Amino acid sequence: AEFVAAEEMGRGRGYWWSPDGAQLAVARVDTAPVPRWWIADPANPAKTPIAHPYPAAGAANAEVTLWVVALDGSKIEVRWDHERYEYLTNVAWSGHGLHIVVQARDQRSLAVLRVDPATGETTEVFADRDDVWVELVPGTPSWLPDGRLVMACDWGGARRLVVDGLPVTTPDVQVRAVLGVQGTDVVVACNPVDDATVQHVAVWSEQGGLELITKEPGVHGATVGGPTIVVRRSHLGADGAVTSVLGGSDLVSHAETPLVRPNVTLSRRGERRLAIAVLLPHEAAPGTKLPVLFDPYGGPHAQRVLSARSAYLSSQWFADQGFAVVVADGRGTPGRGSAWERSVHLDLAAPVLEDQVDALHAAAEADDRLDLTRVAIRGWSFGGYLAALAVLRRPDVFHAAIAGAPVTDWRLYDTHYTERYLGNPAVDDAPYERCSLLREAAALTRPLLMVHGLADDNVVAAHTLELSSALLAAGRPHRVLPLSGVTHMTPQEVVAENLLLLQLDFLRESLGLERPG
Amino acid sequence: AEFVAAEEMGRGRGYWWSPDGAQLAVARVDTAPVPRWWIADPANPAKTPIAHPYPAAGAANAEVTLWVVALDGSKIEVRWDHERYEYLTNVAWSGHGLHIVVQARDQRSLAVLRVDPATGETTEVFADRDDVWVELVPGTPSWLPDGRLVMACDWGGARRLVVDGLPVTTPDVQVRAVLGVQGTDVVVACNPVDDATVQHVAVWSEQGGLELITKEPGVHGATVGGPTIVVRRSHLGADGAVTSVLGGSDLVSHAETPLVRPNVTLSRRGERRLAIAVLLPHEAAPGTKLPVLFDPYGGPHAQRVLSARSAYLSSQWFADQGFAVVVADGRGTPGRGSAWERSVHLDLAAPVLEDQVDALHAAAEADDRLDLTRVAIRGWSFGGYLAALAVLRRPDVFHAAIAGAPVTDWRLYDTHYTERYLGNPAVDDAPYERCSLLREAAALTRPLLMVHGLADDNVVAAHTLELSSALLAAGRPHRVLPLSGVTHMTPQEVVAENLLLLQLDFLRESLGLERPG
Repeated sequence: AEFVAAEEMGRGRGYWWSPDGAQLAVARVDTAPVPRWWIADPANPAKTPIAHPYPAAGAANAEVTLWVVALDGSKIEVRWDHERYEYLTNVAWSGHGLHIVVQARDQRSLAVLRVDPATGETTEVFADRDDVWVELVPGTPSWLPDGRLVMACDWGGARRLVVDGLPVTTPDVQVRAVLGVQGTDVVVACNPVDDATVQHVAVWSEQGGLELITKEPGVHGATVGGPTIVVRRSHLGADGAVTSVLGGSDLVSHAETPLVRPNVTLSRRGERRLAIAVLLPHEAAPGTKLPVLFDPYGGPHAQRVLSARSAYLSSQWFADQGFAVVVADGRGTPGRGSAWERSVHLDLAAPVLEDQVDALHAAAEADDRLDLTRVAIRGWSFGGYLAALAVLRRPDVFHAAIAGAPVTDWRLYDTHYTERYLGNPAVDDAPYERCSLLREAAALTRPLLMVHGLADDNVVAAHTLELSSALLAAGRPHRVLPLSGVTHMTPQEVVAENLLLLQLDFLRESLGLERPG
Repeated sequence: AEFVAAEEMGRGRGYWWSPDGAQLAVARVDTAPVPRWWIADPANPAKTPIAHPYPAAGAANAEVTLWVVALDGSKIEVRWDHERYEYLTNVAWSGHGLHIVVQARDQRSLAVLRVDPATGETTEVFADRDDVWVELVPGTPSWLPDGRLVMACDWGGARRLVVDGLPVTTPDVQVRAVLGVQGTDVVVACNPVDDATVQHVAVWSEQGGLELITKEPGVHGATVGGPTIVVRRSHLGADGAVTSVLGGSDLVSHAETPLVRPNVTLSRRGERRLAIAVLLPHEAAPGTKLPVLFDPYGGPHAQRVLSARSAYLSSQWFADQGFAVVVADGRGTPGRGSAWERSVHLDLAAPVLEDQVDALHAAAEADDRLDLTRVAIRGWSFGGYLAALAVLRRPDVFHAAIAGAPVTDWRLYDTHYTERYLGNPAVDDAPYERCSLLREAAALTRPLLMVHGLADDNVVAAHTLELSSALLAAGRPHRVLPLSGVTHMTPQEVVAENLLLLQLDFLRESLGLERPG
């Protein structure tokens, strides 16, 4: 799969077997037109840099065609209107035939096409369009046994299950994924639109409509195979997760019990009923003021405030060092319906930051131990962008920031993700300029630590280095911690542990906190 | 010229015309065996990295041969024992014929060879050897009109002018360079071995011996051409330099008067009579304690303590921000005779650092305004190495350090420079291990700011990145400021200015100083 398919479309593969095993649908990916970005290892100058075809926003994507190849060596190109639909987002080959999902570059339309493998001809069987964007939903397309198509679309305010072109769930439920089809039942993951902190597994059937098969609070997922459904549940009342065969027994878990025990309270606050988690030290003396650490992600396609204890381990570790840690999911995060998710269209900065500020004030109103004179913010990836944005735009609220692997200029991020939110910068650069941290560098007055893996081939280190250069050009002190040999995440245990310690050190120094004796 | 010739041997060129213009001596440089080091620009990922043949200590050098080529297309190789003499350090083609200077890889021997351009045969006309190293002296070889060879060698304790194989200057004078031959006179730059802060221009003649032609204190250089000598003088009593034709008039200078006015006192102190410059703020209230900033280079082949006002502009800028700035040249720096310069053989760390500590104590004894509880050190290149070394090994003395483009592991520096001091690590790695900062990373307890140009192809950024990784692995907080698009020096005015301001900010924060109201 080309980079954006794997990273942004959830399509990690490039070939699909026919059900009889006699043919393959194969994507041909030509990255020749894509800009080459170089990922070097400056800590090991003898190591040859890697040329990485990176389709930055506005630049050329890989040219993707699909071919049906057979054991006899024959090769037939699947034909569709590539001008209209630049992206091949999914391929499915089942007893219902070979289908592809294609999407326009502007992401306002997609189509499911049925392919005749003998000729490569395609016929549209479903199309969706939206003035903002159409969403790619995991598990779609699927089919009922009678051949009716199962999709999920943002129609009428929420993401709804769509069978044979008609919505079959109500707009108060947000369908997150189609998990499988079992007989004539469709198994989905979903949540109430007014509460995205939980996630349930439900079954839709023509007879019964949508029926939850998980009833307890928590975050549930499921895997469907043959007549079996295996459910995995995490919740606030226990560590880890419980995996059980539906209607059968729990699987034994040998997972280690975490050393950190989240002391977390979820609430919904403010005008927009923001989901907020507050984590407190286990032994905070009553009446003590606590410095505040915001620990958000804040961007599209990921949530941080969940009814699951395991979501809070790093946050609680910071809380145990003496912070009130606040985690909030604001506009742009998934689960709360179409309008909520789309509030960041053409502006990934202002509404996201505004909701964090609102969450702080709401949390402080509810608990007067939160010390609003000492507020820091940390985050990784989009969360790093948000953290840097916070100290640049709201130094009155945020007094220090740690930006891990931040985006600093969306022009340096990829086509499929970025153009969905900000449009094509080759057509209109204004949203990119509006959301760039580089042009705001001179506003920095708060301690800012940037951490970035030099081997990051997703959010490349240029994001941090360009912001650092802009800060230097503006004479603004700041800190950079370049991580040699580290990519977008830091799975290396020793690096991860030391990063926590160094962040803590930075927070204490920046907020003027005493080290505990 | 290959990298080490240009960077370390003072040979910036690779071809030499015969006096009659009919032939050329041409160096053929084959970098195939040299390791490729990649210099990327991670702030501009689309920029193709440059493959840079970098002969790191212990690795293969470029293969250098010399050829005499003529206008008729003929080509003759100059033959010498390449096994014995790996380096071609200089070539001279004059009325006295074609000569080459070759040097052994271990730098303990060199030879001047006379070349027969018709056959490529060579004959040794001079050889020198030394148990530690032989020095390459600018301006050598030269010739008197009668054909006698003029060299300069470390013989009997100092660098002496050598004519026809015999030393003709006394060991109380250090000859720094041969500036030219004028008639039967040899014009040299030199200084008294007991005072390297001055430099004079002198003329040696058979009749008169060595006679100074500059009598005033200061730092003098000269250019010799035909019957003319042009002398350039800098001293402590005036800004800039005065350039004058010897026996004639001064050239008019249009140089700007620096905004910074050095308030500097030179002295010789301590057991080793270290040359020390102390720079004070112009308006230090009497009796105020002053935080101390060390501002050394400290390494071989460069001095910082000179009787020239222009040497102290950056240092005085820091002094004017409220510091007592101390600059000291210790063992290993040039000008004070052979033993002094060679004290760093096999150890570039301990004696260098010891002399800085001694200089601090000597300076503080002489002026009780120096506050020994607030001492920082800054330096660039070798000075950056020294600054980082200082906080690692002597946190009792140094409370903060700024290491600009530091060497942190001598294995990552080049053959010709590094092997001269530490030997070949492929033969004996112990001196490299002894002088490596990487293995001492866990000792860091003081604020350390590392600044490094990511485009540095001399002291590559890997030095800083590897020390940063080692510090991270040891959980030691530190700061890195990566400079995008910047090489070993920072000629960019805006970068240079902001770097000063950010350094000042770091020093104030690290030493707990108030910003002036």
